[in-house]
Order: sequence, then C-alpha cells, then structure tokens
Amino acid sequence: MHMSESLHNGSLCPVVSQTFNKDFGNEGFLLENGKTLPALEICYETYGKLNDTKDNVIWVCSPLTADAHVAGYYSTEDKKPGWWDALIGPGKAIDTDKFFVVCSNILGGCKGSTGPASINPRTGKPYGGSFPTITIGDMVHAQKELFDGLGCKGMFCVVGGSMGGFQAMKWAIYYPELVKRCIIIATSPRFSSQALGFEVVARDIITQDPNYNNGDYYDQPVKPDVGLANARKLAHITYLSAVGMEKKFKRAQDQENRNHAITYSTPFDLQLPLESYLRYQGAKFVDRFDANSYLHIAHATDCFDLETEYGSLENAFKDIKAEVLNVNLSTDWLFPPHESRRITSALIAAGKQVTSLEMDTQFGHDGFLIEVGELGKAVGRFLDSKIVESNGTQSIPVFHNEQDFELLGSMVSDGARVLDLGCGSGELIDYLHRTKNVSGMGIEKNLKDILGCLENDVPVIQRDLDERGISDIQSGSYDYAIINRTIQEIRDPVALLNEILRVAKRVIVTFPNFGHWSARGSLMLHGRMPKSKELPYEWYDTPNIRLLTVKDFYTLCEKEGLVIEKMAFQNEQALSKVLTAIGLKNFGAEHVVAVVSKKV
Amino acid sequence: MHMSESLHNGSLCPVVSQTFNKDFGNEGFLLENGKTLPALEICYETYGKLNDTKDNVIWVCSPLTADAHVAGYYSTEDKKPGWWDALIGPGKAIDTDKFFVVCSNILGGCKGSTGPASINPRTGKPYGGSFPTITIGDMVHAQKELFDGLGCKGMFCVVGGSMGGFQAMKWAIYYPELVKRCIIIATSPRFSSQALGFEVVARDIITQDPNYNNGDYYDQPVKPDVGLANARKLAHITYLSAVGMEKKFKRAQDQENRNHAITYSTPFDLQLPLESYLRYQGAKFVDRFDANSYLHIAHATDCFDLETEYGSLENAFKDIKAEVLNVNLSTDWLFPPHESRRITSALIAAGKQVTSLEMDTQFGHDGFLIEVGELGKAVGRFLDSKIVESNGTQSIPVFHNEQDFELLGSMVSDGARVLDLGCGSGELIDYLHRTKNVSGMGIEKNLKDILGCLENDVPVIQRDLDERGISDIQSGSYDYAIINRTIQEIRDPVALLNEILRVAKRVIVTFPNFGHWSARGSLMLHGRMPKSKELPYEWYDTPNIRLLTVKDFYTLCEKEGLVIEKMAFQNEQALSKVLTAIGLKNFGAEHVVAVVSKKV
Repeated sequence: MHMSESLHNGSLCPVVSQTFNKDFGNEGFLLENGKTLPALEICYETYGKLNDTKDNVIWVCSPLTADAHVAGYYSTEDKKPGWWDALIGPGKAIDTDKFFVVCSNILGGCKGSTGPASINPRTGKPYGGSFPTITIGDMVHAQKELFDGLGCKGMFCVVGGSMGGFQAMKWAIYYPELVKRCIIIATSPRFSSQALGFEVVARDIITQDPNYNNGDYYDQPVKPDVGLANARKLAHITYLSAVGMEKKFKRAQDQENRNHAITYSTPFDLQLPLESYLRYQGAKFVDRFDANSYLHIAHATDCFDLETEYGSLENAFKDIKAEVLNVNLSTDWLFPPHESRRITSALIAAGKQVTSLEMDTQFGHDGFLIEVGELGKAVGRFLDSKIVESNGTQSIPVFHNEQDFELLGSMVSDGARVLDLGCGSGELIDYLHRTKNVSGMGIEKNLKDILGCLENDVPVIQRDLDERGISDIQSGSYDYAIINRTIQEIRDPVALLNEILRVAKRVIVTFPNFGHWSARGSLMLHGRMPKSKELPYEWYDTPNIRLLTVKDFYTLCEKEGLVIEKMAFQNEQALSKVLTAIGLKNFGAEHVVAVVSKKV
Repeated sequence: MHMSESLHNGSLCPVVSQTFNKDFGNEGFLLENGKTLPALEICYETYGKLNDTKDNVIWVCSPLTADAHVAGYYSTEDKKPGWWDALIGPGKAIDTDKFFVVCSNILGGCKGSTGPASINPRTGKPYGGSFPTITIGDMVHAQKELFDGLGCKGMFCVVGGSMGGFQAMKWAIYYPELVKRCIIIATSPRFSSQALGFEVVARDIITQDPNYNNGDYYDQPVKPDVGLANARKLAHITYLSAVGMEKKFKRAQDQENRNHAITYSTPFDLQLPLESYLRYQGAKFVDRFDANSYLHIAHATDCFDLETEYGSLENAFKDIKAEVLNVNLSTDWLFPPHESRRITSALIAAGKQVTSLEMDTQFGHDGFLIEVGELGKAVGRFLDSKIVESNGTQSIPVFHNEQDFELLGSMVSDGARVLDLGCGSGELIDYLHRTKNVSGMGIEKNLKDILGCLENDVPVIQRDLDERGISDIQSGSYDYAIINRTIQEIRDPVALLNEILRVAKRVIVTFPNFGHWSARGSLMLHGRMPKSKELPYEWYDTPNIRLLTVKDFYTLCEKEGLVIEKMAFQNEQALSKVLTAIGLKNFGAEHVVAVVSKKV
C-alpha cells in the first residue's frame, strides 16, 4: 500500500529542500584535523515517514558533486527528478512507503551546506582560502548531527556509491551500533594510484589557474573557471568507460563532421562531437559548482585510505555490525572491481556478513547512476523481507534436489558454519539454516543466482572460482564447505580442494561417478561418451570438464593426504542400488557424496 | 663479426647527430593539407653501414616526444644512451653490424627538425602560430626526403612504437615497393575515443594557458609552461598502467611520507611520492619540449585514422607488400591490445603476411621502451635469417611428431594455403612449406611458441582460440585448416569447427580416441579414468577437457552436416593396428586424423 504522498511520473512530487542549522558556539564543530567550524548548515531532503521506533532510516550518502536532491520532483513543472530517482520512491528499490529516506549535501559542498563559499560567522566573509581541510569522516560526523536533529534512532541502511561509498563505510565504522545494513556501490578502500594521479593533475590545473588566488576569488569578476572546466573534462573521462566512449563517439559514424573538420576553423580543432561534449561538460560544471568546494571534497577523497588509517582493511571493519552489500561495476576503472573486491575480502576476513555483486555495464563508473535495473533489484532484495511484517505463512521454496539436501543436511552438524561453493540461489544454505540452524555464505558466479540468494537472504560472494579461488578467506573460518555438483567444472580441482580444506575443517564433495556401470557400458559397448541423468550433456558442450570415478577420487585423496570420513551415494536405478549395496560402489554409484578432511 | 665501430657499455660510441637540409624553392615541400614549407631541416642519426645494394636500411620512426638519438652514446662521458639503445647496436636485436639504421627527429618537432620554433625563411621569424598543421603522412614524406638524400634504395624494415607505429604503417602504405618489412609496436589504427578525450583536455590546458598567445610566445619572458607541464602530467599517467602505478606508488609503503603529509604544508598537498613524481615529469618536459611542437604533433596523432581515411582498415592495407610484425602490450590502455588486434585482423583480411605478438608487461604503454627483453627477441628473430648469408647447410629441425607430419603432409595438396590452429613453434607449417611448398599461417597462444615460429619464419597470430576464435579471417582464405591435437582442449569445439570450415575448404582434425580399447579397458576393468601415451594426464590436470570417441566424432559430423573425406589412424600398439585393420576403428584407433569438409 502506497502512502498518501503525491506522485508525478511515478516519482515523489513535490519534494522539499530543507535546511538544518546548528550553532556550536565557542567550542565549534570539531574536525578530524583538530580545527573547528563555528556552525553547521546542512541542506537535506527526506522522503517517506519516520516510523514510531525511528529506525526505518535509509541514509543516502552523495557522491563527489551531487546534491541533496536525490529523488522526486520539486513540482510538476520540474523537468528533471533527483539524481537517483530511479532507485528511490514509493514501490521502488528503496521504498519510501516503508523507509524514511534522507539525503544531504555534504560538508564542504556548495549546494546549501557549509562549504568554502559559505559566510564564516567569525568574520562575516566567505571562508574562501581559509576553509579548513575536511575529511570523509568530518562529512559523516556532520551528517550524524542531522541524523540526531531529525530524531532518528536507528539506521536501517546507509547507502552510497563512489565517494558516497567512502561515507557509508565510515558510517558503519564510526556508528556500529546504529548501522544495521550498509550498501556500497562502485567504491574502493582508497583511490588507486592511477585515480590519485588524475586527482593531482586536476588539482594543479585549478590551483594554477591565474584567477584562483589561493581560494579567495569570490569578489573577483572572473573566477578560476578555466581551470575548473578543464579539471572537470579530465574527471569526466574517468567516469566513463573506454568501451562506452567508443560506442558514444565512434568516429566512423561522424564521417560528415570529420570531413567538415578538415577545414580546421582553429588550428587544432578536430570538430568532433567528443570535443564539444567534453567542453559542454566543463562549461556546465562551472555553472553549477564552486572550485573551492571541488578542491576540498576531492582532497577529502584523496586522503581517504582505510588501510593506512586502520593499519589494515580487516582492522578497519573489525567492529562494524552492519551486514554489507558491496557492488562493483565491470567497466569502472576509477573504482575498479579488483579494489572493490578487497573490501569484500576484508569483510570476509573480519568475519562480517557480506554479499558482493559484480554488475556488468558499459557505462564505467557512472554506471551506478545510469543503469539501475539489476542494481535496483539487488538493493531492493537486500532491503526487502527483513522489514515486511510476516503474514504467518512462510512459503517453503521448491527444491530441485530435495533428496540432495536431506542427505547433505544429515552430514552437517547443528549450528555449524557452512561455506557453499557454487551455491546457486542459496537454497541449500537456506535449507540448512532452517533445518539445522547453520550460518552460511555462498560463492556463485552467475548474477541471476546471486539475486536469488538475496531473495533467500543468503550472503553470497559473486566469484568465478576458476579465476579467483578463495585465498581471501581466513584459515579455519568454516566447519564445513560444500561443493555440490561443481568440482567437475573446476579447472584445477586439486588446488581448490586443498584451499577449501584450509578454510573449512571438512569438505562435502558431490560429483557424478564416471565409473558408473551405465557410463562404462556406454563407452565399452557403444563406444560413445555417456549421456545419462547425471551426465546429461554431449561431450562437446558439457560443463563437466573433469570426469572422474569413485576410484579416481579415492586415489586422489590418498595422494593429497585427505581422509574420506563418509561416503554416500545417490542412486535412482535399481541396478545401481544393488551394485552399491553389494560393495561395488565404483560400478553402482550414480552420484557420490563424500565428506573429506585433512589427515592430521 | 662486429664491425670496427667503437663501443661503450656494449653500445655504439661515439654516435653523431647530423642534419639534412633541403630547400624546396618556390614550390615548397607540399603538405597533405595543401600548404607548403619552403625548406626542410631534419636532424638524424645513423648507425652501421649502408650495403652495396643500399637496401639494408632499418628505419626507426620515433614516438611523440622522442628525438633522433635512438642508440649509442655521444661520448664516453655521456651518461645516458639513446632512447631505444637496448634494441639497437652491434649484436643487438636491430644489429648495426648487419643493418644501416636511421632515426630522425619528426617534422614539427623541436629537436633539430623543422617545427614551429624554427625560423620561417619566408619571414625570418619563428613560425610560432603560423606553422601549418601537419599529418603523420607529412612526417613520413619528410623522412622519405632524408631516405633519398642518404642514397637509400630499399627499406629492409621500418620500425615504430606508439606514434612511431602510425608512421611505420604510413611508410608501408605510401611506399609499398620500398618497404619489405614493418614492425609496429603498441600502436592502433587510430586513437580510441578515450585516448582522444585526454588529448582534447591536454590541448585545452595548453591553449588556455594565458601565456600561450595563439602560439606566438617565443619572444615572451614567460612561455605556456604551466599548461604544458599539466598536459604532460596528464599524458604521463596514460603512458603507465594502473597496476604499474600501484606498485610504484603503493601508499602503504609510504607510511612515513604520509604521516608527514598530515601536516598539510599547503592545503591540498598530499605530500606523496606520486605528486612529486608527476610534477617532476611536468617540469622536466617543459625543459626539453616546446608547447607548439607538442600541440602540432599531438594534433597529427589525433587526426590519424586509417579507417576514415581509407574507408576501411582492410582497404588501407590492400596494397602494402611488407611482411608485418605487430606487437601489443598487455597493460597498454592508450593503445590497447584490442585496437592493435584490429590491425592484425585487417592485415589477415587483406591477405597480408602478419605475425602478431601479445607481450605481457606491467609498464603499460611505456613497456615498449622499458621492457625490451622478449620484444628484442621477437624483433631480432623477425629481422634475422633473411639477411644472413646461407652457409650452405640448412639444419633440419627435430620433429617430435615426425610421423604425424608425414601423415598430415600426405593429406595436403602441393602449394596449398594452410592455417594451423594451435601451431606450436610452427614446425608443421615449416615442414609443409619445405616438403609441399604450402604457404601458411599459424595461430598459437603461448609466447614462447610464437618466438619459435619467428625462428622458423612462420607467420603466426598470438591468440587464445577460446577467447577470440577466428571470426576476423575471411571466408575461404585457406585450402586447409589443421587442428592437430588441439580440438579436445577447446571449450566450444563445435562452434570452432564450423568457423574453421568457413575460412578453409577442408579441416584436418586430429584427436586422441577415447573409445580406444585401452581407455575403455581402464574405465571398464579398473574403474579409472584412463592414462596412456595419447592421454598422458590425470583427470584433474588434463588440458583435454573434451573427451570423444571415433563414433562421437562421426555422430557430430552427421549432425553438423560435415563430410569425413578421409580418416586415418596412428597406432603404436600391435593390438590397435590389428583392431583397426579388421574395421574395429573405434576400438583400435589410438589417434585419429580426419579430413572433413562441409556437405555441399
């Protein structure tokens, strides 16, 4: 049921820009560098209603140059909704019918919150060059003032993309008791050296603009616009992907422009759409942003470095209580996937609950603002089901392999910690959670399955085991690892088995037995690669690139110093059952389930 | 035997900078935009001796900001050798004992060749803002004047990396009769949109410097140094790789600097080595380079676009006669591998002889100047053996599979065009070339094997068939394709077989027969995955991810509409031979050789 808020194009309308003011008197608002600000002004917007327990808060942290207007229209005449409107509103991923959503302009900004262009109450003049340097932590502390000012008591979830992710992580670190969930998107533990290099150049371009005047330019007729525009052009390229730019500006399609460009109206002008596009981005930015704000916020971003600040990433996260959803974007090279994955690894290592997602996009870093379809699904499911009131009848998911689950369940002890490699939509962990009270995490490579895991409330890491393995999981983190119908698809199953037995005390391996009488018969009598219920593929398209028999598995375990503690078989055919019963396992077993541990 | 040139640290010493002058009188040196230059001055260096036939020339085309000093020392006091000295000298990859090597400063430069800072003979003043825009083609035409002036008659090889690759391609296109070989490294058919975006920003940074004065700044006390330095900092980042920068500047290692940086001597200074490094690069560049030259050369690079100029890449290359070696660098994102590969694809499509190489490096685009070990080997082998006088005794390579080769050879007609997929070091093509006079090309994924191909003079494309297939090869380009002991390692063998039969009339497939009696016996009697001479791996580490029998192959061909024209078997064991002889092929065949074509 939607609340009584009005809508326009399916979005909230009207939404209202509000201002929070707090005077900190002589003491001042303390910054992390020890300096103070006499007062805080914070521009913000809220959507939805704060509930009675005042804890249905979703806090949106804005990226570098965005403002507090994240959702809805100011009026029906308003042409453009807030910058993440696709994600926030009644019935949307961040559902304003359920949640009280807040977004504020960051400290240091120029969109209504205290920043370098604000009047310093101590002098009556704009701060300009005297504005103190700020940190991401300062931004979060300022937001906490607003949080308290609004009467909020608990944070259902803090959400942030890009630099917003920096803030969201700091929220979870600074206020572990408040923050229940944390969604970070297209972010990293710090800027890469490459990204930082671009920052250095952009900063030099602005501060070396002859009109910069050490930041005291507010009374000048000409401001450091040339520098700011060029810095923005540069930054804008880093928000796009190479492949996205190629598609957008493919020169072959601009044949006409290009031929025109041969006339060279100015010596070096290429007269390509790419040039006018970048120049437009620069000019547009100068119209809406202040150079000092840009420098200060960029500097806070440059200095953000959880590893250096806390000694290690794992240490940075050691006290957080939030469950984390971490999303990276495939073509993002400003906050590249491998940097984002380090956050996931550290959270795993710190024993935190994390779900990680790898979104495929051609839009580069900007993808999180542009391509919100799958992202919305993930965010919605991560936020869902935990707050909806139960209607008393919990639906039991349909299992494709119910017998599998019973058998596997019988091998796992109550309350165990379980890692499921190749977990699909998380049905097995969900089943084990409900029947054996296990806590678990899955690893899965397909996005669709990951979304299923979110539906099933199973924490999951999106990962191709062939590519990245599990080396980031701490030794002894799990009682059991399960690799169900997956080992035969792995390029290097032996290395993976050994890795699994580093992170888990026991591994439950299941695989189709290529020594089964029907497989042998197919090859022996028909001279063909077998096809069966367990091996349903043709030789040329099977994902089972590793074929093995029960005997092969015994031999391998012997060689690797592994102990087979239990072995069970899943047989459907009568002959299989008979053969297995009389001890001819390698002939009889259709599907093998083995519990294996390291020889001690 | 080395010639009598003196050496210093194994490099040529002394080398001498020389100048070529040509006055073009009233007619002028015609530029591609129709304008003229009254005279050309070209600074150049040469190493080695021009032979009697004046065709042992290796022409080195310089990248954006390099000069003519590519090799050797000017004196024994000289600290730094030429910029590609590791590659050029007596006994080096570009062997100055064999070759006459020339490198010149490009037209538009500021290192001794005619450029914007040169005095315009028509006015007696520096060209400055009046210097006409130039093209890569103009640079090549100017170099051709030097080539003729030096009395050269033939070009054994033109070599260029980065923008030098642009020039080298233009040499091969403009002077097909002269240029016998062409080595292009870390280059592309044109700048990507992303790279062009950075160019646009860099250009705006320079031209908007208040001291730029439309290029007429030579008599000013202050030149557009700030803009030039910032443009260089930006460009410098694009020459490095993200991973290389991360290693170089890893902030965790700079703990001390970082703690120091907390004091903020200037508001936004991070006091990180990365900052001082970039600023040093900017300052150093301003000392050695002229802003106008930078703008003009960059502009020529920006406008270079073979596809637009010739309608298609394939068309651009249609008349070249040079054999091409095309090398890309794994972490180069300014001239990324996928752009370089388009050159290879177009050359293949145009029916040209090309060898392509994918060098693994962490140094990004700069890798071709820094990491010359493997590159040197490839260049050396590409240039080798063709010019050394034969001593009469040609060594016969040792074959591991000589019987294979004889059998395969018997299936290929004389003078056929052959594509060998998974060609190893090219021994088979070399064998077929020597025994059946075939012309061939190989595809191989391992660099070591590629270097072997260069040794064997077999053109080869470095490629993982699982990743990129052969879709860029034109239909009907080959009489035979051979996929020898490789099909069972391919993820999607059916799609590949169909692709192969698009580009070749017939495919010769060889594979180990999993239906062989010993494989069946191993599985049937011992219940284990078989190991044999043909299947020498364990189930968990075999590259043979696709196991098939003779019968499976028949069934597949039937299903895909393929005709098995011939089938032969390679058997070592007596029983195999007997079984095959009495018609029990699927039992008897150890290794299968089949000639397959499409049903017509």
